[in-house]
Amino acid sequence: MTVISLMTDFGIKDGTVGVMKGVIWGICPTAQISDLSHMIQAQNIREAAYIFEQSVPYFPKGSIHAVMVDPGVGTKRRPMAARIGDWYYVGPDNGTISGLLDRAELSGWKTQFVELNRIRYWLPVISFVFHGRDIFSPIAAHLANGVPIGDLGTPFNDPVRVDLPKPFRTETGWRGEVIYIDHFGNISSNIRVEHLDTALEHKESITVKLLGVEIKGMVNTFGERPAGELIALMGSMGALDISVVNGSAEHALGVKLGDEILVTFKVAQ
Amino acid sequence: MTVISLMTDFGIKDGTVGVMKGVIWGICPTAQISDLSHMIQAQNIREAAYIFEQSVPYFPKGSIHAVMVDPGVGTKRRPMAARIGDWYYVGPDNGTISGLLDRAELSGWKTQFVELNRIRYWLPVISFVFHGRDIFSPIAAHLANGVPIGDLGTPFNDPVRVDLPKPFRTETGWRGEVIYIDHFGNISSNIRVEHLDTALEHKESITVKLLGVEIKGMVNTFGERPAGELIALMGSMGALDISVVNGSAEHALGVKLGDEILVTFKVAQ
Amino acid sequence: MTVISLMTDFGIKDGTVGVMKGVIWGICPTAQISDLSHMIQAQNIREAAYIFEQSVPYFPKGSIHAVMVDPGVGTKRRPMAARIGDWYYVGPDNGTISGLLDRAELSGWKTQFVELNRIRYWLPVISFVFHGRDIFSPIAAHLANGVPIGDLGTPFNDPVRVDLPKPFRTETGWRGEVIYIDHFGNISSNIRVEHLDTALEHKESITVKLLGVEIKGMVNTFGERPAGELIALMGSMGALDISVVNGSAEHALGVKLGDEILVTFKVAQ
Repeated sequence: MTVISLMTDFGIKDGTVGVMKGVIWGICPTAQISDLSHMIQAQNIREAAYIFEQSVPYFPKGSIHAVMVDPGVGTKRRPMAARIGDWYYVGPDNGTISGLLDRAELSGWKTQFVELNRIRYWLPVISFVFHGRDIFSPIAAHLANGVPIGDLGTPFNDPVRVDLPKPFRTETGWRGEVIYIDHFGNISSNIRVEHLDTALEHKESITVKLLGVEIKGMVNTFGERPAGELIALMGSMGALDISVVNGSAEHALGVKLGDEILVTFKVAQ
Repeated sequence: MTVISLMTDFGIKDGTVGVMKGVIWGICPTAQISDLSHMIQAQNIREAAYIFEQSVPYFPKGSIHAVMVDPGVGTKRRPMAARIGDWYYVGPDNGTISGLLDRAELSGWKTQFVELNRIRYWLPVISFVFHGRDIFSPIAAHLANGVPIGDLGTPFNDPVRVDLPKPFRTETGWRGEVIYIDHFGNISSNIRVEHLDTALEHKESITVKLLGVEIKGMVNTFGERPAGELIALMGSMGALDISVVNGSAEHALGVKLGDEILVTFKVAQ
Repeated sequence: MTVISLMTDFGIKDGTVGVMKGVIWGICPTAQISDLSHMIQAQNIREAAYIFEQSVPYFPKGSIHAVMVDPGVGTKRRPMAARIGDWYYVGPDNGTISGLLDRAELSGWKTQFVELNRIRYWLPVISFVFHGRDIFSPIAAHLANGVPIGDLGTPFNDPVRVDLPKPFRTETGWRGEVIYIDHFGNISSNIRVEHLDTALEHKESITVKLLGVEIKGMVNTFGERPAGELIALMGSMGALDISVVNGSAEHALGVKLGDEILVTFKVAQ
């Protein structure tokens, strides 16, 4: 019972996601299918890449992750299947896997990339504009059935990468930026546990600044502070987050993606 | 592992969709359940019929499609199970299957209709207002378990049909209308590949007009034109669509359902 | 194929729900997972308790219901597994099960509560802020695999209860309040079939008042009255509901949670 996840910018009204499950189960009737997200902002590959990197490592080994955020559908962009460590990606070669590839390189995971071009593994009729249904869903189902990735297409070694914003070391800490805002209005930065490292042993002496607001000291979790208070903490994915207890930091601060976040390990003058 | 799809106007907050899955799995523990849509506009049978017709043919043979868009729940409207070609429908007899029935007649598919009235296949207690949970979910589950459709009720031959708007032939092409607007703001018309036929061999000479805007020439896919450009193309379901590359044609044009679309095969004077 | 349901206030964009399914299937590959709701208002335990009580009894015996509406995540609030009658709850000990516990006591169902503290049944690394992924999903999966609830932690007998508003008997009927408003704008009260009892044999003589509006007589279902009419009826969950036929009572009346509803069995002067 192989697990397949689906991530798209299709929304949940039009029936398009349901149809992809119909196609998958027609080929692999036992697949367990998890909706990762269908609310990715239209054509926003960076957003898909962020959620992809955060989520995939929690899935079982051998699971297959089909992502259809595909502004180039029907053009010459390569349709791709990839193996990254213990997991498979199926979707356009457009940079969605960039974050997980960075992690694979740091961790020494094996990778393998094929350009999908064996049409016997696709639906019989291919539209120009819905490769999620016609190519990527069948490919995911065939992988789930045990077809080796190498049978699905021609190997290549230069997948498209998108630059994900990296934080910079400063004299007194790190300068990063807002890279995601979640359903609760929690703000995630690109400053991670690896950057802060031993500084996290003295959370009370860390200061976080964004949009002219200064948060002195970090906490472990929401319930340590009263409702409505602005806090800084390490999120569940290992990133420095800014939140409002039982509220929305997004609304409180009027923050947007890309806004600068400064972390200092000692209270700056 | 029979596939069941669910389509409703119930939304996704109230727990009603989750409850239906609980009922189904209580009767048929192995069913694979796909959410087709739960965001159908309240009581909008035509919208349900459109998505139903577009989606069902991509599901495996023998799959079961329960649709609960049911303004007449609890009144004398017939609860129904139907076989249409290789697929089953379960839901109210209110016209939801009209589009797929048109296709069945064109294609010579077999059809069979029964009025559900064998209460041993229902939940023990039937509310007046939630037949999706009390009647249609159990019926779908029993079908998935292999109960023959003929055992579920009394045969009949006159299912309710709703008139879906048809396009008209003009001297120089077709006059149709907007019948669906999707999550991206793509506009779908009722002018289809069957209507345009050989004219599609000369896409560059096709002109599409709506709301005073004229689109000269059709393209195959979004990536052929720059972001923001208004294009006409054949959508993944075989309909003439109007889109904005990486944008929303709905917002660009202020279009609404029923707005007229004119297609000419030669540029009209 | 044990059924697990998930209810959260996580929304459906961030991938967090999909990740929990990945974790569950990594431990129990055959689980059938139903999304009960992920649109609970942030931190609204009463709303979760309402949907939980209404929904769980429709699920198969032995099913497991994980609820992550958890304003106290990472604090001293107990993580809990509970057996309530034929069903299991997994989540924080914060009152979410209050309504179903009331029902269990009325019905004489067995109950059992354990504080989760056997970390061998959790993920290897536990974040402070995502126990849904790190503790509750793995626990639900182990229960689905047949691990006895008593193995998961230490028994206790005093689960947190929240007071759910109760209706009051008046000289001529009942005084209750609005406790839920659904996707259609239907208004649910805390006045139930058990309260009205034999008065329901004479629905025409029941009067319902809220916000200065009086509805004379109750109906069985929507289709008995013309579109746009305000009606009172017994909802599918056994509560007195106020609706607008093919419309929204919420919008028509400007109602909000907690607004008073008066029911009289004879038309009041």
